[in-house]
Amino acid sequence: MRLILASQSPARLSVLRSAGIEPVVRVSGVDEDALVESLENPTPEETVVALSAAKAEAIEHDDECVVVGCDSMLLFEGELVGKPGTPEVARERWHRVAGKSGVLITGHTVLRVSGGVVTGRASAAESTTVRFGTPSEEELEAYIATGEPLHVAGGFTIDGLGGWFIDGIDGDHTSVIGISLALTRRLLGQVGVSVSTLW
Amino acid sequence: MRLILASQSPARLSVLRSAGIEPVVRVSGVDEDALVESLENPTPEETVVALSAAKAEAIEHDDECVVVGCDSMLLFEGELVGKPGTPEVARERWHRVAGKSGVLITGHTVLRVSGGVVTGRASAAESTTVRFGTPSEEELEAYIATGEPLHVAGGFTIDGLGGWFIDGIDGDHTSVIGISLALTRRLLGQVGVSVSTLW
Repeated sequence: MRLILASQSPARLSVLRSAGIEPVVRVSGVDEDALVESLENPTPEETVVALSAAKAEAIEHDDECVVVGCDSMLLFEGELVGKPGTPEVARERWHRVAGKSGVLITGHTVLRVSGGVVTGRASAAESTTVRFGTPSEEELEAYIATGEPLHVAGGFTIDGLGGWFIDGIDGDHTSVIGISLALTRRLLGQVGVSVSTLW
Repeated sequence: MRLILASQSPARLSVLRSAGIEPVVRVSGVDEDALVESLENPTPEETVVALSAAKAEAIEHDDECVVVGCDSMLLFEGELVGKPGTPEVARERWHRVAGKSGVLITGHTVLRVSGGVVTGRASAAESTTVRFGTPSEEELEAYIATGEPLHVAGGFTIDGLGGWFIDGIDGDHTSVIGISLALTRRLLGQVGVSVSTLW
């Protein structure tokens, strides 16, 4: 049984590889903004689940496989936080979050495909609290200068240089990286696949 | 400034590399059992701190460097849990912990060496709660068959196959892997070294 990861995130790929799975990566061309606009007053959980489902459905399936779609967002003081994009935004963002907590929300969808048709679907979301540390100005400038925080949701990683500035989490650390192993295992179970058959 | 990691743990080395540091690895020959026996009614925190300090002091230092020593242990229902060693012990262990929580205690010691002498020392311990999932019998047998749980403290990892069976943590996930980045950063700061100068 092959696992198809419907995501171009190198962090998600790395989590799966460390956990014994070499997935096939196929990237969907889902119009995320259009999909989100089509939802009526969605909760953050409904949004990440809808996006994860759309990504899983959009890619080309093999005849026998499981497909995993993922989407993540960071909520800070009730507000959705995206990728900073520029050093200025990253700096301002870190000054706001330092010493405080945010909530990383991850949605996953698992499809089971047998004989070329989807025979099982399972989706869920989960939340993890992330406690930000307080980098010194020297550390923050050095971190921004590496470029790492500019192009990641929330302006931080926990599996790269950003790990120095995360005091702790409450939840699943793989969910914060982008794919929760525990949740993926449960969803695989719901469509009748034991994760160990994928190792 | 060079960082010397006084540990042979590939997991600790991997955490540091992911976080931008390529340490020199030097392994100490500390007699851990003798050291622990020499402590009078130590708490788990005192034990891991004493072991981390002994490891950091025991290795050969460069003239200009920082040395990091680490020690970790898992407490489950008040009892210290080591490496299972055999499939039988690993199986029994997982049947006990499944669906419950343990506490991973990590101790770190940082030495700053200038002109060949130790000019600064800082040590601390921290605790992280680990919530174990419940693998099915099929999954548990497959996990044990890989050999991974047999030779790691507590019979699990969160950064390998064991990650599928960890529902979440409360604390620093790098501490559970073996070296807390946040704590190491704080200890480096106490001896006057900004972590970003080591990247």
